[in-house]
Amino acid sequence: MSQTAITPTRAANFPEWYQQVIKAADMAENSSVRGCMIIKPWGYGLWETIQRILDRRFKETGHKNAYFPLFIPLSLLSKEAEHVDGFATESAVVTHHRLKKGADGKLHPDGELEEPLVVRPTSEMIIMEAYARWVQSYRDLPLLINQWANVVRWEMRTRLFLRTAEFLWQEGHTAHATAEEAETETLTMLDVYADFMRNCMAMPVIKGRKTPAERFPGAEETYTVEAMMQDGKALQAGTSHFLGQNFAKAAGIQFLDKDGQQKHVWTTSWGVSTRMIGGLIMTHSDDDGLVLPPRVAPSHVVLLPILKGGEADAAVLKMCDDIKARLSQVAYHGRVVEVEIDTREMNAGERKWEWVKKGIPLRIEVGPKDVESGKVPVSRRDRDAKDKTFAAVDELVGGIVALLDDIQSSLYQRALALRDERLQVITSEDDFRAYFAGEGAKGFALCAWAGDEALEKQLKSELQVTTRCLPLAGELPHEVGGTCIFTGKPGELVVFGKAY
Amino acid sequence: MSQTAITPTRAANFPEWYQQVIKAADMAENSSVRGCMIIKPWGYGLWETIQRILDRRFKETGHKNAYFPLFIPLSLLSKEAEHVDGFATESAVVTHHRLKKGADGKLHPDGELEEPLVVRPTSEMIIMEAYARWVQSYRDLPLLINQWANVVRWEMRTRLFLRTAEFLWQEGHTAHATAEEAETETLTMLDVYADFMRNCMAMPVIKGRKTPAERFPGAEETYTVEAMMQDGKALQAGTSHFLGQNFAKAAGIQFLDKDGQQKHVWTTSWGVSTRMIGGLIMTHSDDDGLVLPPRVAPSHVVLLPILKGGEADAAVLKMCDDIKARLSQVAYHGRVVEVEIDTREMNAGERKWEWVKKGIPLRIEVGPKDVESGKVPVSRRDRDAKDKTFAAVDELVGGIVALLDDIQSSLYQRALALRDERLQVITSEDDFRAYFAGEGAKGFALCAWAGDEALEKQLKSELQVTTRCLPLAGELPHEVGGTCIFTGKPGELVVFGKAY
Repeated sequence: MSQTAITPTRAANFPEWYQQVIKAADMAENSSVRGCMIIKPWGYGLWETIQRILDRRFKETGHKNAYFPLFIPLSLLSKEAEHVDGFATESAVVTHHRLKKGADGKLHPDGELEEPLVVRPTSEMIIMEAYARWVQSYRDLPLLINQWANVVRWEMRTRLFLRTAEFLWQEGHTAHATAEEAETETLTMLDVYADFMRNCMAMPVIKGRKTPAERFPGAEETYTVEAMMQDGKALQAGTSHFLGQNFAKAAGIQFLDKDGQQKHVWTTSWGVSTRMIGGLIMTHSDDDGLVLPPRVAPSHVVLLPILKGGEADAAVLKMCDDIKARLSQVAYHGRVVEVEIDTREMNAGERKWEWVKKGIPLRIEVGPKDVESGKVPVSRRDRDAKDKTFAAVDELVGGIVALLDDIQSSLYQRALALRDERLQVITSEDDFRAYFAGEGAKGFALCAWAGDEALEKQLKSELQVTTRCLPLAGELPHEVGGTCIFTGKPGELVVFGKAY
Repeated sequence: MSQTAITPTRAANFPEWYQQVIKAADMAENSSVRGCMIIKPWGYGLWETIQRILDRRFKETGHKNAYFPLFIPLSLLSKEAEHVDGFATESAVVTHHRLKKGADGKLHPDGELEEPLVVRPTSEMIIMEAYARWVQSYRDLPLLINQWANVVRWEMRTRLFLRTAEFLWQEGHTAHATAEEAETETLTMLDVYADFMRNCMAMPVIKGRKTPAERFPGAEETYTVEAMMQDGKALQAGTSHFLGQNFAKAAGIQFLDKDGQQKHVWTTSWGVSTRMIGGLIMTHSDDDGLVLPPRVAPSHVVLLPILKGGEADAAVLKMCDDIKARLSQVAYHGRVVEVEIDTREMNAGERKWEWVKKGIPLRIEVGPKDVESGKVPVSRRDRDAKDKTFAAVDELVGGIVALLDDIQSSLYQRALALRDERLQVITSEDDFRAYFAGEGAKGFALCAWAGDEALEKQLKSELQVTTRCLPLAGELPHEVGGTCIFTGKPGELVVFGKAY
């Protein structure tokens, strides 16, 4: 730790540390619009790499992108009762279509719409309405479509990335001829998410089913990938919903099957959002600031030339240009190694610390001595900020992929070890209450569960604890015995946590 | 032409032909939300290639992407008077933030906002407000940011892609220390657009300045790239605005310059939208349907196996797979040659015509005879639909880039020739009125102009004609004499047209 580190530390005040990490990395900030954030270039660059990787995986699994309207007529949104009720308290509503000068000389809303339009909180209904037109026969199925879009949910308490009134996301919406196909799709996309989180975001997630109380409004089954943050709290990083025929019936999506019968389709939806970025920050960052896994970092390497205003400068800059040119030729997981050169006139220590706080995986300071020796000092963001290892340029270029992959895997292993330490098997209600007593979160409780919605509601209000998921087979090695710690009935393994 | 062609033809009813081309290519359709379109996968795929190319060019010219809020508080939008007036009649306004069940059992808007929020018609004010926070010193300049986003302008008469209530676009917003730098930026981005339109969209555009009457609300100078459609009408395909210090003053963006003085920045903005896709359609498509320039086509080649259900099928499919595998290895302008194989069980003629109407640059039907001969019949979309040329697979793979480039350039040359035929130098007001009399559009009139806003208004209301631009030096070779055909004053070259 250093004087230039983030204040406060994680231990002192985790929520405030989180805000300060974002600020110091210049990723995002609040705007003058209640609850809406501005995603600044470094934060948006991260979103772009996330988009690029996920988009490729969606296409590899047979999906195509499309775009549907931002607005949903209120009567259309209301067609699936449980769905609209789930979003009613957080809907931004457009009621007028122009502005007109009033007697006070100021502009006021004018031209009231015949029907109010809800700014999409999610697009099931507007997309299902289209599918009802598009699907006639089994030959039109499956319909595998994804949309990258902004959505609005009027949250009262917002926090950058984690919970904002407007956020960016992708939402996949598919329609199938059979329940089995739709269930397979739901789990395939859950796997795409889990694989992406683990291998690219370096986040160890648990795949599982949500309890009925925690399902998406209108879903028959919601699957989730649950991550643990460094403060022991849970973050739902992505969800994949099996929607059964609920939306198909609400929107009237029917097809003529091979057997000559008219049937409703089976649908799914699945999404991840800019919220994941909040999860990434709280998984890896340290008291020096942001830490980015190389697979999703907007840039991998920053070259920091030490310029003295003298004759040596030209050679220093040339060495930086050469290193950049050579590294930029190296392929790295579907793109190339991305290199920045920062030549800003400012104190070298301050400049270095800006990049530490931005979480770039590798920093290389290049001075006249390094030009002479032909070796440059390489500093890894996952090590202490003072550490450096000297490498000849050939060695650097030849070893860059292995080095970045090593950082990637060390971040995953560190996060996994931290999480596993904080998975606690709980065998009695008393232990459960003791574990979750007080304000903070120690981690996840694993126990046998056979409770119902009423019990979940009670635990949430008493302890701020929710069921995170019923882990899929093979996700966790823990044994929890067979009896629900609350009801004494035969139960199954559930993960409890305090959630973001 | 064939029975499977588009009805009506271009000559019979150009606007209806346009709608039918979009429908036949399955690019987009109207939604149940007034004026909002659904962009279907083939149309969205085109937008994705456009985005990929432009995004790379923006980054090459030093810009980074960011994201700003969808909503603009009414008081903030009102800070630049001319600007807000320009958008007042087409603003979608959010006035409530939740839904509540009424006495009728239905949901109604509830929770009125203290201040109405306008859904962004463009983002100058919300971005400039952020810049006012971000810019303190000359060291913070220039600020070069682009945003990919949806915007809403409540148009009363909409048409797919050309004019929709919601559309997708990019908007660049930059701030500079000097007027000269901002002017250079404005023209650099105009060049990026013109180059993209010409070399990727195969659209011959004219770069020029707008007259004061046609400027963006709040701009000091608006530059445009103007294209001519096959019906002789004009389409503004992109604009780049020099905003002077208007927005800087409205938003209070000041910086401490090197000379120790506090100064307002100079700003620019520039944008292109999904409207360009409408321009692309009306530039190249023919009575058989959509025609796509290879540089922006979502896919380049479709392989159409002729399957008979017999033993030969396996060899036919294998040949298609082999061709696809080999073509997919070939680099084509920053991506690879993209190949589709269409194995749907349907009439081969109908299937072929679907792809003709989708405008894919190359179609290759592969049957058992082709497997035997080792040569496949290649059909170009820019030639008659019945034409085909046989090529051995090696020849096809080795020549694919040249072949696609030849289609690209033939489309540009064809469009250029058509446009040049329809550029008419006009030397008197009588000739001008005769040229533009009646409903349709013959093309562009080039004449000397020294008129004012009142005269432009009059010509627009009498003849539905507007000034398209004052062409930049070197854009057009035409001489127009020195005297304005309306006022007799010394004038300069202007392009008039009937616009979309």
